[in-house]
Amino acid sequence: MKVNVGVSNRHVHLNDDDYKLLFGDRPLTKRNDLTQPGTFASELTVTIKGPKREIANVRVLGPNRSYTQVEVSKTDSYTLGIDPPVRNSGDLEGVSEITIVSEYGEITRNAAIIASRHIHVDRKIREERGLVGIEKVSVRIPGEKGGIIDNVYLKDSEEAYFEMHLDTDDANAHLLKQNDEVEIILN
Amino acid sequence: MKVNVGVSNRHVHLNDDDYKLLFGDRPLTKRNDLTQPGTFASELTVTIKGPKREIANVRVLGPNRSYTQVEVSKTDSYTLGIDPPVRNSGDLEGVSEITIVSEYGEITRNAAIIASRHIHVDRKIREERGLVGIEKVSVRIPGEKGGIIDNVYLKDSEEAYFEMHLDTDDANAHLLKQNDEVEIILN
Repeated sequence: MKVNVGVSNRHVHLNDDDYKLLFGDRPLTKRNDLTQPGTFASELTVTIKGPKREIANVRVLGPNRSYTQVEVSKTDSYTLGIDPPVRNSGDLEGVSEITIVSEYGEITRNAAIIASRHIHVDRKIREERGLVGIEKVSVRIPGEKGGIIDNVYLKDSEEAYFEMHLDTDDANAHLLKQNDEVEIILN
Repeated sequence: MKVNVGVSNRHVHLNDDDYKLLFGDRPLTKRNDLTQPGTFASELTVTIKGPKREIANVRVLGPNRSYTQVEVSKTDSYTLGIDPPVRNSGDLEGVSEITIVSEYGEITRNAAIIASRHIHVDRKIREERGLVGIEKVSVRIPGEKGGIIDNVYLKDSEEAYFEMHLDTDDANAHLLKQNDEVEIILN
């Protein structure tokens, strides 16, 4: 079964309280839609700071969530000087501390993760494609730096666009770009 | 069959003429030995420049070779604004142009590649491990971001230390560190 690739650069999700601390009454305005229905890249960016260095121009995604989460790559984590675990979104028990800085304020939260490789699905997609009851799959990647990546989780939402999200390390290591087509292997 | 991982950060090899243009009569002094017999990281660094941005503090390795070659990751290539091919060392026909800058001079060469995944072997290692006549293998990587990487070339030298070299994209995508142990799969 084929699936297209979406490449996720480092980004930040904020909860309403943290949004207010960083941006006050400024609205979370949309820059462009993302592929998952209802989600968007906002016009806002922050700087993220670890004990070693900081990374500027990190995009804030919308809409706000019930939790604040900073998704970085392993490469970013060496720059920042943190050692975040690989996690699914929202599973933030014991994750890495990171500081988020805006023009207006600064917060420090246990919020930094390396996102698990995942494929967005909903109930309809699972039924149509024979994926009901499946937690994770492997994916075959073609090309000069291809291979198979394991532990690609199926991530459910109310309404999904069927796409595999990889961070920039996974994409660059395998020479993958946005919308490249790869092959799901059911384990 | 097990093999240990060596992680190669971006680095530069120079030929004698280009070395002289960049460093004149300054000796190529050793900072530390590398794992392959006779090779070393020197005390010298350069800045590499592409059309988009530059990357400073890129290590010059020794001894000099018969060709000048700049090995970068795909991530680096986006920073630099170049699109280098995946190549084995020394196979430089049609590779990307890059500028190398030292304190003393600057050269521009068709020299930038993304190094192929490779395992260092010599005749003795090939015979002892049943690898005679094999051009490339796949390698199984354990862990949360594991999988299988294909197109890992066996690279021959007179005397080798048996080790798989990956660039920082491959290492970071798979959460691998120097000396981690992985498993060769004979195709």
